[in-house]
Amino acid sequence: MRTIGFACTSAEAPLAPLHFDRRNPRPNDVVMEVGPEVTRHKAGDIVAVGCMVDSCMTCDQCRKGEEQYCREGRKYPIGMNGVYGGIDAVDGTPNMGGYSKHLVARQEFVLKVPAGLDASRAAPLLCAGITTWSPLRTWRTGPGSRVAVIGLGGLGQMAVKLASALGAEVTVLSRSGKKKQEALALGADSFLASGDEKAMQEAASRFDLIIDTIPVEHDINPYLSLLDVDGTISLVGQVGPIPALSTLPLVYGRRNITSSLAGGIRETQELLDFCARKNILPDTKTIAMQDINEAFRQLEQGDTHYRFVIDMTTLKTD
Amino acid sequence: MRTIGFACTSAEAPLAPLHFDRRNPRPNDVVMEVGPEVTRHKAGDIVAVGCMVDSCMTCDQCRKGEEQYCREGRKYPIGMNGVYGGIDAVDGTPNMGGYSKHLVARQEFVLKVPAGLDASRAAPLLCAGITTWSPLRTWRTGPGSRVAVIGLGGLGQMAVKLASALGAEVTVLSRSGKKKQEALALGADSFLASGDEKAMQEAASRFDLIIDTIPVEHDINPYLSLLDVDGTISLVGQVGPIPALSTLPLVYGRRNITSSLAGGIRETQELLDFCARKNILPDTKTIAMQDINEAFRQLEQGDTHYRFVIDMTTLKTD
Repeated sequence: MRTIGFACTSAEAPLAPLHFDRRNPRPNDVVMEVGPEVTRHKAGDIVAVGCMVDSCMTCDQCRKGEEQYCREGRKYPIGMNGVYGGIDAVDGTPNMGGYSKHLVARQEFVLKVPAGLDASRAAPLLCAGITTWSPLRTWRTGPGSRVAVIGLGGLGQMAVKLASALGAEVTVLSRSGKKKQEALALGADSFLASGDEKAMQEAASRFDLIIDTIPVEHDINPYLSLLDVDGTISLVGQVGPIPALSTLPLVYGRRNITSSLAGGIRETQELLDFCARKNILPDTKTIAMQDINEAFRQLEQGDTHYRFVIDMTTLKTD
Repeated sequence: MRTIGFACTSAEAPLAPLHFDRRNPRPNDVVMEVGPEVTRHKAGDIVAVGCMVDSCMTCDQCRKGEEQYCREGRKYPIGMNGVYGGIDAVDGTPNMGGYSKHLVARQEFVLKVPAGLDASRAAPLLCAGITTWSPLRTWRTGPGSRVAVIGLGGLGQMAVKLASALGAEVTVLSRSGKKKQEALALGADSFLASGDEKAMQEAASRFDLIIDTIPVEHDINPYLSLLDVDGTISLVGQVGPIPALSTLPLVYGRRNITSSLAGGIRETQELLDFCARKNILPDTKTIAMQDINEAFRQLEQGDTHYRFVIDMTTLKTD
């Protein structure tokens, strides 16, 4: 099908309008309309698509609802069919991302936006939201859990809001005291300046779970000893190398280092429903499609205190 | 109390006989005799002491039976009172290790050697045995578990025997194919040469648990992708730095990196009972006390296929 979106036609080019072809919808696909085999959604429903549009649906991971770890397709690093960079399993066409008038997804990968959730701010839940929700749920965060969140960007903000809404005692870690007020305003119970050596020493063994949202290479050694025995640090901000680390805090406390990839469809729907019920939304700034290059510039300069949401009705289709 | 043992009187000196003082036994302590408050053991019982002789017995970890992570005493790295390097909580005297005619331990830290267990080979179970048993139990190894063991020294051999006896499917990893026969003879189901790149690629996502017993600094990156989704690598061989690693296998499979410290008393007794029932023993070579320096020389040259056990009746007491 013919559609229009914003795309870069070279590594240096800015994002600009582009007419292009997507695969034609199949009977179980959803666009603004639904295919004849679609039972979960109907035209007019407010729906959402996250990082995936398809997976094999038959392997053990997919059957468990962990489609992000689907075994098929590219065995490693990922098997599921991503919105960005994925390849359609039937006809081999590349997926074309989400900056587009249309997007084609198999019905099982289309999420319901609950009535109580502000659709204009829901989009970041499908990425920053699920990326922090999934480790919180995997490590059974609830009342009595002591959760630390490192970093207070888009991921960190969601981690604080979600952990707090799950009933955990939440501490925000940031280099200096600068972000303390923001942390407390988001719902954190306390704040720890990671640059304050004495405070860090006093916080030894204090947390059951650390959600580390720092998006660049960084030393995790100072954080390991903040974990209690059997505690876990989940590195959800950074993809790539981490510097050498000492096994000592792992030995003397059976601490765990892990990460995870977004979350499965069932878990994502659970998140949307939870956020609707608890009235949890990311801090967002809505922009028009044509302002996307300026938004990227601001992101590169860092320290935006919100997620950008593109109002797709502003995409001119002529 | 006055006793005799083998000790180094300087960093360069060989181990040699030394008369020295230990703390006097208290009412709940065990030596060749038992104090008046001791109810668990009696003179003449065959008993064993592992890496600990005491802990606070009141913190949450001790109450859980995880005395190795006791919160008291030195807060970090360890709180329990170690046979080597520990300090008595009551009178502040240093513990003096186990190369000694006498050893004083609180009754709760004295283990029963079951009737069916060959006492002349049981000692390494208290160290190499529990160090591998504990992660196998923590990560619920049993029939259906796919366990890999890296390295085939004292720890690795025990890991293979124990994982196999627990019903797991066991694979031994070693650099070259040289140790394949030994691995299979120990009970491994298969062997994987970590130097064989093709075999390593084919083994991607194959294991639920990897027990890494390599005792020196080494790159764990090649092993991470051998873990299945939610799999765990436990680094029990090395204490100290590990080189930089990539978060990619952690992100794209929620894999875990961890370690642990020996095991608790309840778990150690469980191990001794299990080994008696299953007739599992380490490969050992019994030596006389006066041959200890020669044994260390052989250990330093590497590749001893057994654990040394010292027959303490050979310690001359005059």
